[in-house]
Amino acid sequence: MRHEALRHEHCAIARSLSVLGERWTFVVLRQAFMGARRFEDYQLGTGIARNILTDRLRSLVGENILERRPYAEHAARTLYQYRLTEKGLELYPILLTLMKWGNRHGGFEQGPPVRLVHKTCGAETEPRFVCTNCNEDIDPREVTPVTAEPAAAS
Amino acid sequence: MRHEALRHEHCAIARSLSVLGERWTFVVLRQAFMGARRFEDYQLGTGIARNILTDRLRSLVGENILERRPYAEHAARTLYQYRLTEKGLELYPILLTLMKWGNRHGGFEQGPPVRLVHKTCGAETEPRFVCTNCNEDIDPREVTPVTAEPAAAS
Repeated sequence: MRHEALRHEHCAIARSLSVLGERWTFVVLRQAFMGARRFEDYQLGTGIARNILTDRLRSLVGENILERRPYAEHAARTLYQYRLTEKGLELYPILLTLMKWGNRHGGFEQGPPVRLVHKTCGAETEPRFVCTNCNEDIDPREVTPVTAEPAAAS
Repeated sequence: MRHEALRHEHCAIARSLSVLGERWTFVVLRQAFMGARRFEDYQLGTGIARNILTDRLRSLVGENILERRPYAEHAARTLYQYRLTEKGLELYPILLTLMKWGNRHGGFEQGPPVRLVHKTCGAETEPRFVCTNCNEDIDPREVTPVTAEPAAAS
């Protein structure tokens, strides 16, 4: 994996990127969240070359982000589908924040390509990021990062 | 830029990644949000090779994510600092979601490397992602993506 160097950083952002940072990986994940299951769904939805797509799907299965399950048997071979695991589903906020920023700064003169409807309440939604404690919007100027103390030698 | 192919996708996630997807770009942005200003702050904070760092800073200035401002004049040269623009500050939710997922899945046996304190309320916070309309947490199974109609020919 070309992002291997990031995996050993003592930084959660770097470690996420070591898993997710290959080109096209987020586009493959987008298709998973849009409902893709079979290899052909991913291929049609992304237009990625088949060998690259094969590699990305395999990596994501290896990271336990996608699960590979048989869904049909043909005379000659078994067909598989690729579904998000719980760990994969937890990537959703990352995809949404990338989407929100891209909607705003991606040069879409005709408006966002995709809108989100929250089934629970029926409204079109553009998710907000709020503090777990006070429910106010999170502003970077109002957050202090505190670096954890190194663990004491035992 | 190696992620150029993503720039022309009709997808906000892909367009965000076309700007942000180079290796180390998020690590540079992390330093900016941690308070880095001068080249040396970024270099010490990331350990990135100087030529790569120079390239990433230049790209981010070119995208109007960082602003380059003179802060001192020496006999021989002007020194610059690199600060987040408003467009750059809007990347904060992306960094936080990458951090949150990495904290959980990055293999940090001693706990998260960085914790966040919300100055507004004084509490340690792990931001939540909520619907703009109903304020409930956003679950991917409860969101329907609606693809925009292509614009009518005029």
